[in-house]
Amino acid sequence: MRVGMVGLGKMGAGLVRRLRDGGHSAVGFDPDPSARNSLSAEGIQTVGSLSALVDALPSPVIWLMVPAGSAVDRCIDELIPLLGPDAVLIDGGNSNYKQTIERHARVKASGVPFLDVGTSGGIWGADNGYCLMVGGETAVVERVRPIFEALAPTPTRGWGHVGPGGSGHYVKMIHNGIEYGLMQAYAEGFALLKRRTEFDLDLAGIADIWSRGSVVRSWLLELTAAALKADPDLSGVSPRVDDSGEGRWMVAEAVDLNVAAPVITLALISRLQSRDPDSFSNRMLSAMRRDFGGHAVDPES
Amino acid sequence: MRVGMVGLGKMGAGLVRRLRDGGHSAVGFDPDPSARNSLSAEGIQTVGSLSALVDALPSPVIWLMVPAGSAVDRCIDELIPLLGPDAVLIDGGNSNYKQTIERHARVKASGVPFLDVGTSGGIWGADNGYCLMVGGETAVVERVRPIFEALAPTPTRGWGHVGPGGSGHYVKMIHNGIEYGLMQAYAEGFALLKRRTEFDLDLAGIADIWSRGSVVRSWLLELTAAALKADPDLSGVSPRVDDSGEGRWMVAEAVDLNVAAPVITLALISRLQSRDPDSFSNRMLSAMRRDFGGHAVDPES
Repeated sequence: MRVGMVGLGKMGAGLVRRLRDGGHSAVGFDPDPSARNSLSAEGIQTVGSLSALVDALPSPVIWLMVPAGSAVDRCIDELIPLLGPDAVLIDGGNSNYKQTIERHARVKASGVPFLDVGTSGGIWGADNGYCLMVGGETAVVERVRPIFEALAPTPTRGWGHVGPGGSGHYVKMIHNGIEYGLMQAYAEGFALLKRRTEFDLDLAGIADIWSRGSVVRSWLLELTAAALKADPDLSGVSPRVDDSGEGRWMVAEAVDLNVAAPVITLALISRLQSRDPDSFSNRMLSAMRRDFGGHAVDPES
Repeated sequence: MRVGMVGLGKMGAGLVRRLRDGGHSAVGFDPDPSARNSLSAEGIQTVGSLSALVDALPSPVIWLMVPAGSAVDRCIDELIPLLGPDAVLIDGGNSNYKQTIERHARVKASGVPFLDVGTSGGIWGADNGYCLMVGGETAVVERVRPIFEALAPTPTRGWGHVGPGGSGHYVKMIHNGIEYGLMQAYAEGFALLKRRTEFDLDLAGIADIWSRGSVVRSWLLELTAAALKADPDLSGVSPRVDDSGEGRWMVAEAVDLNVAAPVITLALISRLQSRDPDSFSNRMLSAMRRDFGGHAVDPES
């Protein structure tokens, strides 16, 4: 099939390359000319507008891979008048599933078939395949099945139609929440390996040992082994850890559903703390220790 | 080589089988005759005492796979008079690394070479290979290298000499602490997938999708997929979750080292809470809500 990709960042460009390698073709649009040029240099057609993208597609299948939020709505609003019931519009980004449910209603009312796809795999997906969690109507999923089969690690594994509109992004949100917890668990364990200095442990070596046969083996651990091998003290990366929104949505969802998700919640909180070394709450604690216990508290220490 | 295995439970029996399949041989001892009989029925020699075990080994290599604590000391105390510098004594169980450091000193003083080995892989290790984290002196490790090469997933991967005496069990303790955090993160995520009932999600199917190409793919997730496929509501397993000690040691270690390990700590705490549905602290909270807020609190609800 021929797919129009909107958004040619790391993920969008990777998807285009895997589609090409899987025997499909793609035409790409990105408002940033440098993103277009890097794909054009590989022989992939790019265009300078959404209308040109639609014109370049005989049967428009359009995959949005743009930042969650208003950018998705701007694309949808501009595309809907250009598309009809023969098209399929796919939001493959990390949209909030509640917004996705609203968009399903809006796009469906316009007569354009719509799917939400949670896309996992990061920059490794182009080579290894992407894990795809698809939400929407079965008939629409079937129309673009060859695309999912090409993007997934194998045609039959690593992708699936998980439920109605919004469920693809819901499942992806949960996936990312789990990811926060897994990452934090590994990080805490390796911090303890490093701190027990008298054993002089080789952290990269241990990550590699654990990657075979152990109960904690995983793809994240293999990535960790490579990162520690390249930079054993991780001096080249920041101790401040960002977040991209899905962890927050998952924590709010857990509260909404009256489900305790303590570890995932705390993994998010740990990231917040990592970005607040000059914490007012910690100054408060120091003030109370000084004032009731007479503990010396140096404001600069 | 020929190995004497002390303790023929799930792990000990699995190790014996993998040694046999790897071209080595073993003789087993367990105080429980039924544990001995099930291995004897497979043609593996078993004996009824530690002294008979030593007698059955031309060059005694003895692997202890017994519960952590006093059972290890009892075995060591009984074996030391029977062994000399030509032997190698291995503690392959989940001993506390601080006890292991003391045992290294004690066993070394007696002239018997000693190693500590953290052994991961569970009941799947016999087929997939065990992940082995070895602590002790290099010369001793080299003497029994063929055993590690046979037990590991491959001769060169999944096992390693990580450091001096005690470090094998230290690394295994950290491994198990990480395992607590990973398990809890997956569990929380799947609880949210289940609770958002309007999507009617197939949890086993999603676990399978995630097992290929996603960032959260892991061996634990593959196990989870199989468990959910066999019993989608997990009605056949208890909601009370046990722990075997290593998580507690790891939390204490984190405090000792002034390293924050919030997620692993909270994963342990979640297990404690799971075993205390009639929580006195929760009754305290209800009492306070009733007494300052006038909230109705039914003692039976």
